[in-house]
Formats: sequence, C-alpha cells, structure tokens
Amino acid sequence: MQTRLVPIDDGRAFLYIAGQVSADGDQMLAGRCPDQVSIEEATRRARLCATRMLAQVDAAVGLDRVEAIAQLLGYVNSTPEFGEQPKVMNGASDLLVQVLGDAGKHTRAALGINALPFNVTIEIAAVAVVRTR
Amino acid sequence: MQTRLVPIDDGRAFLYIAGQVSADGDQMLAGRCPDQVSIEEATRRARLCATRMLAQVDAAVGLDRVEAIAQLLGYVNSTPEFGEQPKVMNGASDLLVQVLGDAGKHTRAALGINALPFNVTIEIAAVAVVRTR
Amino acid sequence: MQTRLVPIDDGRAFLYIAGQVSADGDQMLAGRCPDQVSIEEATRRARLCATRMLAQVDAAVGLDRVEAIAQLLGYVNSTPEFGEQPKVMNGASDLLVQVLGDAGKHTRAALGINALPFNVTIEIAAVAVVRTR
Repeated sequence: MQTRLVPIDDGRAFLYIAGQVSADGDQMLAGRCPDQVSIEEATRRARLCATRMLAQVDAAVGLDRVEAIAQLLGYVNSTPEFGEQPKVMNGASDLLVQVLGDAGKHTRAALGINALPFNVTIEIAAVAVVRTR
Repeated sequence: MQTRLVPIDDGRAFLYIAGQVSADGDQMLAGRCPDQVSIEEATRRARLCATRMLAQVDAAVGLDRVEAIAQLLGYVNSTPEFGEQPKVMNGASDLLVQVLGDAGKHTRAALGINALPFNVTIEIAAVAVVRTR
Repeated sequence: MQTRLVPIDDGRAFLYIAGQVSADGDQMLAGRCPDQVSIEEATRRARLCATRMLAQVDAAVGLDRVEAIAQLLGYVNSTPEFGEQPKVMNGASDLLVQVLGDAGKHTRAALGINALPFNVTIEIAAVAVVRTR
C-alpha cells in the first residue's frame, strides 16, 4: 500500500506513507551522491520525492486535511565520505513547508545509505497526521 | 523490549516491534545480497523475519487482534550495485498478507544497507495497530 | 523541528524526535566503527546521542512527562564487516533506562550505515509517548 490510515481519535488519524523513491513519472532517477549525481541534482531529486509523497497524501485524504508531518526518514544514496545529507534533504523539507506551511514542518532523520531500490538517489518514508472529517 | 504497546483510544493501540533479524532459531542467517546470498535465499530470509515479527505480535497481544500493519522498514544487506530490495522484501510482505489478510497490508520502505548486526542478511522494524479488548 | 507533538487522547501524545547525531556541544564526533573509532568510543557516543535526545524531550515537554519510549532507530557508521551495532547501541539504551526507569525501555532497531551527516559515528531517531497534562 502507498498509504495506511490509522484513526487516533475524533476525526484525526495517522497516515503512514510508503517509501517514495526519486523518479520522474516512471523514469527512475538513479545514481550515488556526489560522485555520480551532484549535490544540486540530488537536492532536486529529494524535492521530487516530497512531491510524490504529497501526491500520495492527496490521493488518500486530500492535502487540505494535513495537520502535521510527524516524521521524515530520508535516505540519500551516498559514498562513504559524503556527509551533506541534510543539505540534500532540505530539497524535500523546504517543499513540504512551501506547500503545507506550518503543517509541513517535521522532525527528520537525514541518513546516508549504500544501496537503494533500482539504484535510485533518494528514498523517503514518512508519517503524517491528518483530519478525517 | 521486543514490543511496546501504546494505547491510542478505547480498545486500540499501536504495537511497536523491535528490529527482527534473519535467523533460524538461534542461528543467525548472515551474508550480503547478492554476492554472498542469492536473491531467492534473501527473499526466504525476509519471510523468516516476518515470521519472527508475527511471533512477537502473537506473544504480545495475539495474532487475532491485529487490525493493521502500519509500517515496515526493511533493510537488506546489499552490495552498492544491488537494487532489487523490493523483490527481497516481498518475502516478508507476502507472508504478512497470507497470514493476516487485509490487516497484513502495509506501507513499506525497502532499503539497502552496508552492515547489520551479526552480519545478518535482513532486518525489519515494524509498527502494528492492534485491538486490546 | 527537533520535536513534534501529536496528541492521541486525553492528555497523552506521541513526541517524534529528530535524528540526534553524535556530537559534544557543537563538536561533531565523526568516524566509522571500528576502524576509525573503537567499539568502546562508539558506545560512549551512542550514549551522548541519547543524552541529546533527552535534552530535546526535556525542552519540549519535560522529562518527568515521559510515559514510554516507543521506538529507537539507531544507525552506526560501520565498515561492511562490522556486526556489533547492538553492543554500541546499548550505550544509548542503557542511559534511557538509567534516567527514565521503566518508561525508558523501548523497542529498537540497531543498524549499520555507510554514511551519515558530517561523517558522524551515530545517528538515532526516536518516538516517545508523553503526558501533556
């Protein structure tokens, strides 16, 4: 499932969101940062992951129902020496705040990783809080 | 703790489940995919992780009380070039649906990783939703 | 955000905590385990991460309001051969129980990782449950 809704009390729910990979439509955006993909391009790809995440939220409950993004776990395909994952992940974080305002603010873990599905550059898993009525 | 129960409202709770590693009883199933362990064998090991996860849920609250698996974070010990983590993780995902039906459907992040405890092939952390009465 | 509070019912809430990296004040504690940083030193750094996590919880709601630590995701900057992440993460886990008692007990995923922000040795993300009144 791309999303799973867990009601928590009167009219509110957690919305778990599956890991969203860096892709443009069906085209996977692959490669490791920074030796195969630049920091700038990786940042753009993180932004794309967040766009895909928002599309999932919109399909599930509607973007106007988002109360908060509780948690973002962001994995950046990295060489062992690379340590600018926070900069890359800002591509995703900034978009969430641009689109959702205060509701888009979130806690985050920016992490490197040595391997991802289809060799994509970024994967982001998230937990949101939404209104269900 | 292997599991931690967090009540959310009348008779329902989140059940957090500790990372379950690929093991057969006390025997750790180690090795990286795909150079040391084949995709087929890694998939079987992911299924074993899910079996161990269900055993923890059963011990905590009983399998018949599972309302939903909200989230699966699956880490596959991978070479940098390996990108078929979703295929491997299907070993776990398919088992959950076979055993729990619709309640076993979940959001998932399939991830590679360069190192795991005892060099195991797979580790899966999860969050379930259960009925407590 | 360093923390995000999600009310779940009368007077209780989840508190999501951003990934806390191994650092001493502003000084990042970097290096991979065990070739650049010993297991003993990495364990001490995991303890520091937990200290920083508790400081965030204290700033958000006060430590005396912690009801439970639901989940710890702990990433240890590791060589591919290194498999003692649980031992390293005990530095964090033991501190939580020392400070919070039973409330500090938690589910945990101890994981390796090939790269972290600023090349730090440890990053830990967590979810707590707190009383809000």
